[in-house]
Amino acid sequence: MHKIDLEFGKDIYEANKKIADEIKKMFEERDIRAVDFMGSIGSGKTLIIEKLIEMLKDNKNIGVIVGDVSGDDDYKRIKRYGIQVVNINTGKECHLDAHLIEHAIEEIDLDKIEILFIENIGNLVCPADFELGTHKRGVVISITEGDDMVRKHPLIFQISDFIVINKIDLLPYMDVDIDSILDDIKKIAPKKVFLTNAKNGEGIEELAKWLLS
Amino acid sequence: MHKIDLEFGKDIYEANKKIADEIKKMFEERDIRAVDFMGSIGSGKTLIIEKLIEMLKDNKNIGVIVGDVSGDDDYKRIKRYGIQVVNINTGKECHLDAHLIEHAIEEIDLDKIEILFIENIGNLVCPADFELGTHKRGVVISITEGDDMVRKHPLIFQISDFIVINKIDLLPYMDVDIDSILDDIKKIAPKKVFLTNAKNGEGIEELAKWLLS
Repeated sequence: MHKIDLEFGKDIYEANKKIADEIKKMFEERDIRAVDFMGSIGSGKTLIIEKLIEMLKDNKNIGVIVGDVSGDDDYKRIKRYGIQVVNINTGKECHLDAHLIEHAIEEIDLDKIEILFIENIGNLVCPADFELGTHKRGVVISITEGDDMVRKHPLIFQISDFIVINKIDLLPYMDVDIDSILDDIKKIAPKKVFLTNAKNGEGIEELAKWLLS
Repeated sequence: MHKIDLEFGKDIYEANKKIADEIKKMFEERDIRAVDFMGSIGSGKTLIIEKLIEMLKDNKNIGVIVGDVSGDDDYKRIKRYGIQVVNINTGKECHLDAHLIEHAIEEIDLDKIEILFIENIGNLVCPADFELGTHKRGVVISITEGDDMVRKHPLIFQISDFIVINKIDLLPYMDVDIDSILDDIKKIAPKKVFLTNAKNGEGIEELAKWLLS
């Protein structure tokens, strides 16, 4: 069963890469900077995007695509900021793909955005293999998930450009060793790391500056 | 791409169901009770299984199959209890399936176990569609994941027999409404619910009793 999956998978990945490359080219022609936020359910992806919007919206036109298996909770949260936002429900799929993004951006007036944040489906496995045509890809992890998630899911960290370790305000209440997470990152996926507490905005300014640089 | 996935998927699900049914029959003939623990990365699945082992091992022979994309952290944690444990690394797959379980149980002396705990791959999407031949399936969620994960992932809760809400000790530090989670469960997937703090064992005895009943 798994063998078939993999053989079948090859074509899927190639087809996805082709569409992703076209999307990226189109973003570049329009000078739109796009970021793919991956990470587990509840790691804080939506709140981080909200804080980035609050910080940037006076100077930049921002659009957002939110992906979820079901429902429109995140869509509604972003919609409050009065910016362009598209909701993608994947039904049973555990990741967004370039084809879905292609359709989502048909619903966005691209002339009116300079930054596009994409919130991927919440898990550390499936999204890794599917580029969406963004300039940067990042993983948001929460310290509440434990300190072994980097070595348990090396691929998604390795294909990312940045890693956000969120909810650092909860460290005193958790039996979690943040140095062990940072060590794993150094060994397995030495990427740019941001420590954030999205609730009070800690670390978000540094992330925003880096994403725009 | 997604259409192809679904057409292709049908056969996979049917093939999996057939193997799962055979495994279940075999467990029943041997009077082995098997439980599939699903849930996000970091929700506390391993610690809950550890606490169940501590509570039950003097009276029951327990075996464990731990699934992870990569690594053997959970395997090592279970191994310390001196019981039979098999590690499955799925590489890129985001769920266990019945075929993998078929191979894993070849490595277990089934005459020497009465209970089999299976820890599935950590996410709330993929494992739902793949029965493993267990008598009970459950989802472990942590209150740190937020209060919208039930309505965001209805399927996995609907196909489960029980739901564990873990890390309730962190409620005072989180901006999370547990009543909203319980309301969603009542509406979307009215299953048996256990509130636990796996760290100090709170709620584990009730879960253990129910699993064995």
